[in-house]
Amino acid sequence: MTEPDRHVTDATPLLAVVGGGQLARMMQQAAVSLGVRLRLLAESPQDSAAQVVPDVAVGDYRDLHTLRSVTKDCAALTFDHEHVPTEHLQALVEDQVACRPGPQALVHAQDKAVMRARMHELGVPGPRHALVHDAAGVAAFADGVGGFPVVLKTTRGGYDGKGVWLVGSVEESRAAFEAAATADVAILAEEKVDFRRELAALVARSPSGQAAAYPVVESVQVGGVCAEVVAPAPGLSEALATRAQRIALQIAGALDVTGILAVEMFETHDGLVLVNELAMRPHNTGHWSMDGAVTGQFENHLRAVLDLPLGSPQAREPWTVMVNILGGQPEAGPLYDGFPHVFARDPGLKVHLYGKQVRPGRKVGHVTAYGDDLEEVRDRARHAAAWFRGDLGDESE
Amino acid sequence: MTEPDRHVTDATPLLAVVGGGQLARMMQQAAVSLGVRLRLLAESPQDSAAQVVPDVAVGDYRDLHTLRSVTKDCAALTFDHEHVPTEHLQALVEDQVACRPGPQALVHAQDKAVMRARMHELGVPGPRHALVHDAAGVAAFADGVGGFPVVLKTTRGGYDGKGVWLVGSVEESRAAFEAAATADVAILAEEKVDFRRELAALVARSPSGQAAAYPVVESVQVGGVCAEVVAPAPGLSEALATRAQRIALQIAGALDVTGILAVEMFETHDGLVLVNELAMRPHNTGHWSMDGAVTGQFENHLRAVLDLPLGSPQAREPWTVMVNILGGQPEAGPLYDGFPHVFARDPGLKVHLYGKQVRPGRKVGHVTAYGDDLEEVRDRARHAAAWFRGDLGDESE
Repeated sequence: MTEPDRHVTDATPLLAVVGGGQLARMMQQAAVSLGVRLRLLAESPQDSAAQVVPDVAVGDYRDLHTLRSVTKDCAALTFDHEHVPTEHLQALVEDQVACRPGPQALVHAQDKAVMRARMHELGVPGPRHALVHDAAGVAAFADGVGGFPVVLKTTRGGYDGKGVWLVGSVEESRAAFEAAATADVAILAEEKVDFRRELAALVARSPSGQAAAYPVVESVQVGGVCAEVVAPAPGLSEALATRAQRIALQIAGALDVTGILAVEMFETHDGLVLVNELAMRPHNTGHWSMDGAVTGQFENHLRAVLDLPLGSPQAREPWTVMVNILGGQPEAGPLYDGFPHVFARDPGLKVHLYGKQVRPGRKVGHVTAYGDDLEEVRDRARHAAAWFRGDLGDESE
Repeated sequence: MTEPDRHVTDATPLLAVVGGGQLARMMQQAAVSLGVRLRLLAESPQDSAAQVVPDVAVGDYRDLHTLRSVTKDCAALTFDHEHVPTEHLQALVEDQVACRPGPQALVHAQDKAVMRARMHELGVPGPRHALVHDAAGVAAFADGVGGFPVVLKTTRGGYDGKGVWLVGSVEESRAAFEAAATADVAILAEEKVDFRRELAALVARSPSGQAAAYPVVESVQVGGVCAEVVAPAPGLSEALATRAQRIALQIAGALDVTGILAVEMFETHDGLVLVNELAMRPHNTGHWSMDGAVTGQFENHLRAVLDLPLGSPQAREPWTVMVNILGGQPEAGPLYDGFPHVFARDPGLKVHLYGKQVRPGRKVGHVTAYGDDLEEVRDRARHAAAWFRGDLGDESE
């Protein structure tokens, strides 16, 4: 796990970021305050972050030459997404580029089979799982976990519900194997956990080993996409919250993660937490922290990857609720036109738009509300997100 | 006061900003969340804001052709500083550019004689004052206000203590008249107010007339430069706070200000407030609001100039203290090198660096601390600013 590093203590460091999505866009807001300059590798000049960062290279993150050129003279390299090939990151590390997180850590967020094997080694609780190669393998796995349904996942490349299938029979596993063959990846089978709800534990960790744990949140997923996050998770016992934070800190330390690590978990009916997924970058379940915590996850990600002391992850308010704005139907009109209503109704609401083309179901922004009364705070955030989406039509129509 | 406007309800409006200083830089952070694009007219590509905004024109704000080209297709025009010639703004208004604030408002922040005359008309309390043309005029003015010292100010072009002289005799007024002759501006004499402290009342006001008043703050000036701001002003009676807010709202309404109006005031020993200066843009006395209020002044400035409903100006914490980071001696080293100490000492501190070259006395950033105990909060903010400045040397040296 030793990683040769460029020194990052020079004045006004330049930080390379692969990916031009909303995570890089929100990193830019934090970078402006820190006086840190970002250099972006985007796929298009229209990318969410490319609209707000002056120093943008448009290119392919799967091309090592491009990665080398973008990281030249940068204090460190970090990521908006986890899709850079592991072997390219290893080559960059050999070039003395400070990859944060490094490839040995990041592979656990890229490859679910590697992640599951490592979690098992670490004794971290998770669902039962096995690599399956064909329908017979699925049938055998289902037998071993008490029958169907089971969950099938591509080991690489999935996100936001893509690359995940809940299958009720051997026959239903066909689509997963077809997709895996097309993408040349393997299939991991996991038991279907009968969970009470989903939690997420976020930690920031720096190369020097300092770590900060955010309050554990509840996340509500709809169709495999994060819809809503409540911070802190309502009614979560202190014991279980501590257990979730300890697991996240253990993983961050054992894997030598630098930057934000998000650990998505299932809370089971019998009071256990099981690790579902890992992400090594600012995460949707941490967006609430921009307005609801002393130090937002984007600022702590930058502080971590630059090996600056971390900021307090404490919540500023009793309750903070983040609701994603998902693209609605085109007739809902431009998002900007939602402001007059939403802002007039709720002067305390915080809105973050990503500058992305609206497409049905696409994450195009989020809203955050905070306050003392959870029900009220949640209603405020839900109303605003629904309004932007165009879901609050005239019922007489 | 009617102002022909382009409609600003189109999707993702483009907002032109004249000036590339730290105010425009911090507007960009707010613009990113709102999905609003800024187009900057900067003096150099190295300007504070030009480092963080992709759409930058480098040019001269005193050139009407440049202003016309920058504002083309923009929903509105706003300002990082108040130095654009009034006649150019009038020409832009005739071109249907939505200048926010408009020239009839802005002239009161540009020309102190115009401002004083208007405040007098409005019945707003201020120091006694008169335009003076020579030493004899200064002597006569001093006689009328009880003798020297008196304050002389150039009517245009002054800021941060520049263009202001406290003179104790007729002879001492020579420097002011020489500077005024060089700059081709007039000299305004004002009585020296024996004030208890300085206050600032900020309001945001939109073209439709909606206004929001921030808590009245205490500002501590050192050598004519804002050093420290405490929100809310400690020990200020509710009656006086309300009076200060009413004055700011009255001025904003009467002058048809759009965007942030900052009214700097003197609190006198006998419990009055007197208007000292006006600024029509986000203001140093409002920086605390970025971290300490529900809606920061930069976001409310953008919402106001785009005629969106304003956000809550409420304080989020009992006490918020902002201290400017002023450039120290070059041997203090780069500002960035202050982070390891400052962040390790105080995980709750918020730091905003402006990306500006450090020069002695120059505003190069600010720090904000908040909490329940004013003395502790103030000490935290002062310590961090002093550390960045390099003022906390080894006393044994």
